[in-house]
Amino acid sequence: MPNASTAKGRATQARIVEGAAQVLRERGIAFTTLDDVRARTSTSKSQLFHYFPGGKDELLLAVAEFEASRVLEDQQPHLDRLDSWESWYRWRDAVVERYELQNDQCPLGNLFLHIGRSEPGTRAIVVELMRQWQERIANGIRALRSRELIPASVDVDRSAAALLAGIQGGVSIMMSTGSSAHLRAALDTGIDQLRTAPTHER
Amino acid sequence: MPNASTAKGRATQARIVEGAAQVLRERGIAFTTLDDVRARTSTSKSQLFHYFPGGKDELLLAVAEFEASRVLEDQQPHLDRLDSWESWYRWRDAVVERYELQNDQCPLGNLFLHIGRSEPGTRAIVVELMRQWQERIANGIRALRSRELIPASVDVDRSAAALLAGIQGGVSIMMSTGSSAHLRAALDTGIDQLRTAPTHER
Repeated sequence: MPNASTAKGRATQARIVEGAAQVLRERGIAFTTLDDVRARTSTSKSQLFHYFPGGKDELLLAVAEFEASRVLEDQQPHLDRLDSWESWYRWRDAVVERYELQNDQCPLGNLFLHIGRSEPGTRAIVVELMRQWQERIANGIRALRSRELIPASVDVDRSAAALLAGIQGGVSIMMSTGSSAHLRAALDTGIDQLRTAPTHER
Repeated sequence: MPNASTAKGRATQARIVEGAAQVLRERGIAFTTLDDVRARTSTSKSQLFHYFPGGKDELLLAVAEFEASRVLEDQQPHLDRLDSWESWYRWRDAVVERYELQNDQCPLGNLFLHIGRSEPGTRAIVVELMRQWQERIANGIRALRSRELIPASVDVDRSAAALLAGIQGGVSIMMSTGSSAHLRAALDTGIDQLRTAPTHER
């Protein structure tokens, strides 16, 4: 997105992306045209081309980035406040509820399918989302440690990576089975593991 | 696959599926025709139609079933022998190695993308694969319990579901990042959790 160098430009561009995300969620990618996006966002053809010279593909990638940021936002304020067991359980509930509501309609997954999972642009968005998500979980584990709620010996990065993997797998199994059992099991087991972490390795 | 009522018929059908799986792995789904499959498996058009009257779609679904069975086979003999910590670590190594070798070329994932993830046939294969996989992990946890290597209080089904979710998520993150770090973290954390399970809940 090279053409939004002013604050006003960036605001317009963000408005287009947000409106496009809405239309895409409602109608599905296959049934949405650039004209639908223009109608929803009151944008002229030349405006749309100005902000997204690469056309639909570029717009879809921008929407994917926006949807990725929503994945984290939907877990707030809990995700950035994981400093007590109560807050961990509130976060768990927020994650489960988010994906239960979404069920098998994953806006980000659908965009990735359409753009192509192995496209560099898609990969970059996934990698960045995973990085930010894991960092926040790791921050939460560090908060528990500094409050001495877990032993200092806990491997923060490994525990955060395992929790993130469990969430991703739980969500992907849910897409096939329609049940959040695996997502719940992954979150509960991950939190339990922190709670029962031994002070010394056996 | 309705037309394989005799042992010989089933053998021919299995041969076609296995040959088709090979060609698909080598060339990719988009570049493989039924003629390629016929050439590889020395099958006539009428034979192919006899076993797969639904054409390419039906054949692809049968290949997906075959690839799903391979997912479990590739973890043997370890997956069915999870009765000591050594065997759990051997299994972990086998899983990591399988997916590292495969890297971002997932034959089953590619088939699902092509057939459509929400098709009932696809879903049924995923659900059955997850069920069988989780059952084997659960059997392994029960074996540890009956050898008194873990406390009787361990929730077998929840632990198995969490481990399976971690593996799925680890593999899916690996497809984007190219690194098996999350897969390893999920497996190691899951096994550690069993090893350090407290005798009484805190």
